[in-house]
Amino acid sequence: MHQFYDEHISLGQKQFTLNEIESGHACRVLRLKNQDIIEILNGIGGRFKAIIIDNHPKKCIVEVIEEFQDKPQQSQIHIAIAPTKNMDRMEWFVEKATEIGVTHISFLQCKNNERKVLKLDRIEKILVAAMKQSKRTFLPVLTDLTNFNEFVKANPNGYIAHCNEGEKSNLLNQKAVLNTPILIGPEGDFTIDEVKFAQQNGYHTIDLGENRLRTETAGLYACMMAKIKNSSQ
Amino acid sequence: MHQFYDEHISLGQKQFTLNEIESGHACRVLRLKNQDIIEILNGIGGRFKAIIIDNHPKKCIVEVIEEFQDKPQQSQIHIAIAPTKNMDRMEWFVEKATEIGVTHISFLQCKNNERKVLKLDRIEKILVAAMKQSKRTFLPVLTDLTNFNEFVKANPNGYIAHCNEGEKSNLLNQKAVLNTPILIGPEGDFTIDEVKFAQQNGYHTIDLGENRLRTETAGLYACMMAKIKNSSQ
Repeated sequence: MHQFYDEHISLGQKQFTLNEIESGHACRVLRLKNQDIIEILNGIGGRFKAIIIDNHPKKCIVEVIEEFQDKPQQSQIHIAIAPTKNMDRMEWFVEKATEIGVTHISFLQCKNNERKVLKLDRIEKILVAAMKQSKRTFLPVLTDLTNFNEFVKANPNGYIAHCNEGEKSNLLNQKAVLNTPILIGPEGDFTIDEVKFAQQNGYHTIDLGENRLRTETAGLYACMMAKIKNSSQ
Repeated sequence: MHQFYDEHISLGQKQFTLNEIESGHACRVLRLKNQDIIEILNGIGGRFKAIIIDNHPKKCIVEVIEEFQDKPQQSQIHIAIAPTKNMDRMEWFVEKATEIGVTHISFLQCKNNERKVLKLDRIEKILVAAMKQSKRTFLPVLTDLTNFNEFVKANPNGYIAHCNEGEKSNLLNQKAVLNTPILIGPEGDFTIDEVKFAQQNGYHTIDLGENRLRTETAGLYACMMAKIKNSSQ
């Protein structure tokens, strides 16, 4: 059954008009007809089985025949990452982290960032595709580039991975990884001042093993470690 | 210090001639001069600090001034994976798995493979780049496409991840993950016969969580789980 995403569909709706993009995808690209049955996700756990009653390529109308509400994951995984210079690498990270089960992705504007702007709409499309592909029904929450200090002040307590000198512990040995952000630095790493500022705001420093990882690999490895850690609690 | 890779350099050599590719990279691309100091890796733990004495762009001669022999990782991580149709995805897997610490990558020819050929030389280049990037000194051992049954017979006992019905356990709860292959299926998954054949040859079936993962994500996730499992033993 073909899956579509529209954040505006909610429980209790009998009829619904798909947004223009998904209408076009359903009726023009996939050439679905009236009476065809589709599934619509709203990205917050709602799944709707629906029948097409007007296959208009810009405003496709469906009738909901069954609805389900999934429960959110017990534990959140929040990766806050400085985007890489090469955007492909960030897009890979976003896709893979979504498959694994990340619940929040934030982008950090750090001193050593080479990239200062992001195409969030492109990243959102990747999130939606990866959510569908991996059979998740919750869309990760995305936060646009935020100044490092502002982010840390607004989200105190968490973990910061860096390659500078200093005492660091293994993420897996931490008591609780649940629901706190894990910060991953840019290609030039966090500055010593950034690490200090995070520590002053309740962040623990961690390392991610003996190998030097690229930014996007570090982000995904942290995501997988948090997933493994959380699922063993 | 610039790093180069040549499998032919070994402990005890006083002088060495870099192969044509690395000579070109050193002397034509990077324009290194006589007296410049470089590092050469042989992919089996040898690291050689060397001084260029003849910067010939096809046969660059160096004098070894220091040599080190690293110990191999205590535990091996062997991922045997069916290649994806889209080669980019496989190349990404190879890069990331190398960064994380995979020691063996084998490619499986399964019934549902869409891809029947591989460009191994391209994959080897990615391995070398990822080894340098991640500061590893051992190059993962690569095995070309091998018929599934032949591989399983030659490498009995291990783990097989699949999405078919049946009892499966979590890789992290297994007693020993060390040094045994983890099999990851193609986009259409392993067939039931393939899973049975593996089980008859001592393979345990595992799953990789509730989300449906793409082949390359599953491969990397298994690699990270093995790494985490091994490092906690």
